[in-house]
Amino acid sequence: MPAGGGAKARERQESQRVRILEAARKCFSEKGFHGAAMSAIAKEAGMSQGLIYRYFASKAAIIQAITEEQRARRTQDLCAIATFDDLVDKLVEKLHRWRAGDEDDTFDPALFLEISAESSRDPEVAAMVAEQEREISADFADIVRRDAQSRGLELSEEALRCRTMTLRCLVDGVITACVRDPNMDCAQVGTSLRRVLARLGA
Amino acid sequence: MPAGGGAKARERQESQRVRILEAARKCFSEKGFHGAAMSAIAKEAGMSQGLIYRYFASKAAIIQAITEEQRARRTQDLCAIATFDDLVDKLVEKLHRWRAGDEDDTFDPALFLEISAESSRDPEVAAMVAEQEREISADFADIVRRDAQSRGLELSEEALRCRTMTLRCLVDGVITACVRDPNMDCAQVGTSLRRVLARLGA
Repeated sequence: MPAGGGAKARERQESQRVRILEAARKCFSEKGFHGAAMSAIAKEAGMSQGLIYRYFASKAAIIQAITEEQRARRTQDLCAIATFDDLVDKLVEKLHRWRAGDEDDTFDPALFLEISAESSRDPEVAAMVAEQEREISADFADIVRRDAQSRGLELSEEALRCRTMTLRCLVDGVITACVRDPNMDCAQVGTSLRRVLARLGA
Repeated sequence: MPAGGGAKARERQESQRVRILEAARKCFSEKGFHGAAMSAIAKEAGMSQGLIYRYFASKAAIIQAITEEQRARRTQDLCAIATFDDLVDKLVEKLHRWRAGDEDDTFDPALFLEISAESSRDPEVAAMVAEQEREISADFADIVRRDAQSRGLELSEEALRCRTMTLRCLVDGVITACVRDPNMDCAQVGTSLRRVLARLGA
């Protein structure tokens, strides 16, 4: 973000930053990371490309900012989850929102997959995804611990690692499946996950 | 593929087709679906762009041909799988090959994610992914049936659907995790999946 200025200037800068991120989200969702040019984002935001570059040095920097917003939202969501059943409820609710194209939900499953693919080619994106993975793993480990506590179980480090890995693969898999199969039966996903997680947690 | 010609002409056409697909795989792997231009594929294949268009009308058509090859390979791999343990062995073997960038393995996990994302935007790609999803689901349902048989269990239709969905999410999740975290512990993936699938199958 451009430096300097008083409170009013900072306010205007923050509102421009928000406008750029909203425009970028819309363009990425319609065209994808590669398909959305900086010029299209500028047009959508109603400002010059030069001005956008004063806030974000690259598309990767915009993605990073969007990811940080999502991180804050995810932390808030996950803190409220005490058991695997809560997690499945949340995930099924999210599936419905993603399918409905709910604009209040800043997470875009297709963009998540595209950015994941991009991380195998672009070191800047790779560093961002690696950081995100560490955070997600820690969040999932917390859920595994809380679920075990709710059942009065004490987990070994090995059991914690195994369950965290399984949870992470299941959730990533639901996101991938929801993009690949837009007609996926959300209730069936809920029933399937509930069953396997009940056994995982037992 | 261009029509007409005798046996010799057909042989030459088939070898050109193979050369285009090899070049495309290399370009897609390095640059991604969007990053790899038809001109770059032509250059890599050592032929004119015009000639490539006589074989494939679009990048989506090339991806379709690559996907069909993968389909043949997958069917072969999955037929040999009788139990969930066999599936995990195969998956861990694949993880090691993907990580090593084994060129004999025509499946590219990052490209899989990128094409999945693209299916949310391009109807031609969406149709291809939908067809692939039907096949994969049928293959996974067969594995669930064979695993149950190996344990002397008879599954209800509902149990079959649940287990197939879970298996599909787990495998898609492993592919996604392997792209997002190139340092993922493959042995840990194996242990985690073996445990959860033992419970799923019980």
